[in-house]
Amino acid sequence: MENQLILNGTTVANDVKEKLKVRVEQLLQSGLVPCLATILVGDDPSSETYVRMKGNACKKLGIESKRIHLPEETTTEELLAVIHSLNEDRSVHGILLQHPVPKQIDERKCFEAIDIEKDVDGVTSLGYGQTALGFGMYPSCTPAAIITIMDYYGIDAKGKHVVVVGRSPILGKPVSALLLNRNATVTTCHSYTHNLPEIVALADIVVAAVGKPNFIQGEWLKEGAVVLDAGYNKGNIGDVDYEACLKKASAITPVPGGVGPVTISMLLKHTTEAAEKGLKLRNEKVSQ
Amino acid sequence: MENQLILNGTTVANDVKEKLKVRVEQLLQSGLVPCLATILVGDDPSSETYVRMKGNACKKLGIESKRIHLPEETTTEELLAVIHSLNEDRSVHGILLQHPVPKQIDERKCFEAIDIEKDVDGVTSLGYGQTALGFGMYPSCTPAAIITIMDYYGIDAKGKHVVVVGRSPILGKPVSALLLNRNATVTTCHSYTHNLPEIVALADIVVAAVGKPNFIQGEWLKEGAVVLDAGYNKGNIGDVDYEACLKKASAITPVPGGVGPVTISMLLKHTTEAAEKGLKLRNEKVSQ
Repeated sequence: MENQLILNGTTVANDVKEKLKVRVEQLLQSGLVPCLATILVGDDPSSETYVRMKGNACKKLGIESKRIHLPEETTTEELLAVIHSLNEDRSVHGILLQHPVPKQIDERKCFEAIDIEKDVDGVTSLGYGQTALGFGMYPSCTPAAIITIMDYYGIDAKGKHVVVVGRSPILGKPVSALLLNRNATVTTCHSYTHNLPEIVALADIVVAAVGKPNFIQGEWLKEGAVVLDAGYNKGNIGDVDYEACLKKASAITPVPGGVGPVTISMLLKHTTEAAEKGLKLRNEKVSQ
Repeated sequence: MENQLILNGTTVANDVKEKLKVRVEQLLQSGLVPCLATILVGDDPSSETYVRMKGNACKKLGIESKRIHLPEETTTEELLAVIHSLNEDRSVHGILLQHPVPKQIDERKCFEAIDIEKDVDGVTSLGYGQTALGFGMYPSCTPAAIITIMDYYGIDAKGKHVVVVGRSPILGKPVSALLLNRNATVTTCHSYTHNLPEIVALADIVVAAVGKPNFIQGEWLKEGAVVLDAGYNKGNIGDVDYEACLKKASAITPVPGGVGPVTISMLLKHTTEAAEKGLKLRNEKVSQ
């Protein structure tokens, strides 16, 4: 297709961060330092990298990053105790537990223990339910990033047929829910889906969230479809066969430089919003 | 189509209730009386009928029904106080707030106040989130009824394309989530969906949850589709044009006598399960 639009995630993320900068400065001037606590359990190198990237992104914006690094042999109970103490800690506004945790830990139980007010990464079932029912505060960051990119480029989901490939709790499911709430007709596909190419061919908008490199084929697409690639596989490769899809799509996110950078900016946004709520509460108490 | 299967909800409901009877008797023999509290606000005659039907169904099975009837002018705060006291009341195992409440009441806030352990009607966002993420205790009763009918008649959703028409918080959304968790490919449609007939034509299984009498047309269906009609409109009319759909479907639920009776049996099942959890907790305390 001619005149394709490359949906530039770095541009969108910079726009988000520019706007956040003003809000963070206002918070700092009010004497409140927004703070994201990150919990890393064990020594997985890519998890370490992700946590460091998130911490650095916070710092650049003036958000404090409280990094907690627990040993590989941490138990569920020990991790729960850390989460409970961060829930209680008024100087902490957001909590991020880096996925995955070592296998002896009940990850779901630990996610569920995060206070809904501090669930800025959108991992609790309560947060998911609120998002799906249309009044969530902090949806998972990658789904929020996809919506933000669409908004930035004026891509309206209303009445469109969206095909989401993937159904993980922090990506496929919540992005399906968010797009349904934006009045799209949503089809959620996964490993049991028969005739995936035929279903993708119906889509006005395709969201790839499957975790398989170059999985979505160009020949599957309807001419002029919008392609949003939330995949991030080894070697900076997305879930979409970019070159082939580029030929048919009317708009497409590259990997890297697409959904990824916006995802981190959503974490910053949610942490800032949680801190703003903290400030509001503090002011209400002072005025009482 | 020849050899259609009429999915008989009364048969399924009777089967559910027969099995529950044994469990309720065991509870009664242990000295625990399972109890569902129903809250009706105002004097809407059909709501009164629903609540009475639910109460009578409880009684028939040996489940106590604690009926609370509040005046039309009840405030949100007054209703919240009632819910909080039922949450605290150990003799109450399930709480049902009859929808809709008078318009001065914040219904969502009141639903959210129901303790997750007593949310046997599946109305809280936490319950919805847990259901959607695959570990919910008590899904909303109509979606649970649809799954139960499918199980009774051996209709496997795995790999099937399910089209759900409707997206309400207690019907379209949770039934989409449950069927996705059963490994169906799920498309959720609604009033903004373009080309609904073409989308319904793709479905191996159609769930009608739209609230419009005779809305789903026979000519839309793929030959041999399974049709599950969760609609219940004035005059005992479903969302599906039954006679026309009957000609093309391989299996279909009638209205009345389809999803409806099973829905009430799900409420009884969830209340029984909540009471069983109560008994287990009591026994654990005794043995400590």
